[in-house]
Amino acid sequence: MEISITTLLDFTGTFAFAVSGIRMASGKQMDWFGAYIVGLVTAIGGGTLRDLLLGVTPFWISDGKYFLTTGIALLTTLIFKEKLFRLGSTLFLFDTLGLGLFTVVGITKSMASGLPMWACIVMGAVTGSVGGVVRDILLNEVPLLLRRDIYALACVAGGIMYFTCSLLKFPTGITEVIAAVTVIVIRIMAVRYKLHLPVLEPIKKKV
Amino acid sequence: MEISITTLLDFTGTFAFAVSGIRMASGKQMDWFGAYIVGLVTAIGGGTLRDLLLGVTPFWISDGKYFLTTGIALLTTLIFKEKLFRLGSTLFLFDTLGLGLFTVVGITKSMASGLPMWACIVMGAVTGSVGGVVRDILLNEVPLLLRRDIYALACVAGGIMYFTCSLLKFPTGITEVIAAVTVIVIRIMAVRYKLHLPVLEPIKKKV
Amino acid sequence: MEISITTLLDFTGTFAFAVSGIRMASGKQMDWFGAYIVGLVTAIGGGTLRDLLLGVTPFWISDGKYFLTTGIALLTTLIFKEKLFRLGSTLFLFDTLGLGLFTVVGITKSMASGLPMWACIVMGAVTGSVGGVVRDILLNEVPLLLRRDIYALACVAGGIMYFTCSLLKFPTGITEVIAAVTVIVIRIMAVRYKLHLPVLEPIKKKV
Repeated sequence: MEISITTLLDFTGTFAFAVSGIRMASGKQMDWFGAYIVGLVTAIGGGTLRDLLLGVTPFWISDGKYFLTTGIALLTTLIFKEKLFRLGSTLFLFDTLGLGLFTVVGITKSMASGLPMWACIVMGAVTGSVGGVVRDILLNEVPLLLRRDIYALACVAGGIMYFTCSLLKFPTGITEVIAAVTVIVIRIMAVRYKLHLPVLEPIKKKV
Repeated sequence: MEISITTLLDFTGTFAFAVSGIRMASGKQMDWFGAYIVGLVTAIGGGTLRDLLLGVTPFWISDGKYFLTTGIALLTTLIFKEKLFRLGSTLFLFDTLGLGLFTVVGITKSMASGLPMWACIVMGAVTGSVGGVVRDILLNEVPLLLRRDIYALACVAGGIMYFTCSLLKFPTGITEVIAAVTVIVIRIMAVRYKLHLPVLEPIKKKV
Repeated sequence: MEISITTLLDFTGTFAFAVSGIRMASGKQMDWFGAYIVGLVTAIGGGTLRDLLLGVTPFWISDGKYFLTTGIALLTTLIFKEKLFRLGSTLFLFDTLGLGLFTVVGITKSMASGLPMWACIVMGAVTGSVGGVVRDILLNEVPLLLRRDIYALACVAGGIMYFTCSLLKFPTGITEVIAAVTVIVIRIMAVRYKLHLPVLEPIKKKV
């Protein structure tokens, strides 16, 4: 296995997503194995749904590194506990890097399957954000994604940027970097400045 | 795009399902994008699971109209709010029309995949009712479908009627209309006369 | 249909899983049909996800016996009610038999699809345990699997035993029996002696 930048980012994204799942599982009376599964599902859930929708073999079936990485994430969490989360902003950066990378992976895989542009953008957002949705469903909570956070929307923006660069005939590598950076910057801005869309007010049957 | 009756009903069904999802998302501290996603999943969830089970490409991947229709449903909800729901019974009729149509679409797609009769009936019910189940899971509620409502059962009855007409060698068009009308009439009757199956009483371990 | 031991165990496993779903659905204000669906999903959920991941047609589409068996499970539950659960330990044994069998079925199906060893073990655990996860999600509870129970882990141990025997060139039939027995014995031991992994303690952001 060559250690390319993609491999490194893929590892980082998987690790960060797994840690986020394991951390949210903590304090819910789950055993280590349960926490491992929540972490795993957070890391591979989005890509798995994307591959099912594309009709291709799920990416992790031929590559054990996602299962191993989740195991490392669990060990790290067990050893460092709170210390890990003093690094809160570092972890957030990892998670955001993963989000940007996974979105671009989702787009390129969908293009290879011959999907139309808008469907590739959807698949990018699915790859980046569905893992967190499954995590929240398993933990019996309303998915964070649906609440006040700009998350999937950052993936959509990254997707639109991808095809803008593509239409402008940018080289593929540059296009991918710009798209990933777009996701990352929007996500960071949204969290830093507490940007969010308006909340949908209750609609009652009769006023 | 020719505006056939099927297209119109498909639009109506998608719109009504999307509105039902968006409305149930309101008042749950979700932003507009979250509400959009709940609406979308309500509208396309059933057909997506059906297509995954059939091993064919999900219907919406080559056709953006379901995403657009959900957007129109969100805009309509935001603009008209409660006024939309003074039309409660109209919306219920739309939703029920959609249910009938989606059930028939599910059956015919499954027949084209060579499924046995009973599996086609199951797929019709999956197409009509799974969207609402995913909506309720996302909103962290026990699916309405599992509670006291005759919903999936109306789909099953429509499916049985479909194959009855088919065995009697009715023309395809007529068979489809009769099946859809069966779903619709049973659903309306069930709601109007509060028909429902018996509730399963608690079974305790030791009395 | 010849009545082989496999058929009998398959029926037993399906029946036991369906009863467990129906029983957990009772007392949740669900009607009979809702309870039927919860039972069905418990029985076929794991194998269905496995088949989707493997890219093969879901096993139940060409064989109505799983739907029929669930119907029998519902009828039995309605007729015998609490009496059925005086047989609590018998049912637990059925459920455990089913778990062992389903795990082995999952492994052999995955091997036939050419998956690497570790992925076959994962698929065995998916086949055995995902039905219960979907059941708990539908009932709006945190999946039991993620909590203190040795369940999926017993499937993993059975899978490891399977490939150990396989490497030692045991005949296929014997390998399958040993793997299933491993799952069953570990599961029974875990419940009898209340064995479980450590629980993951809450990790707070700042101490």
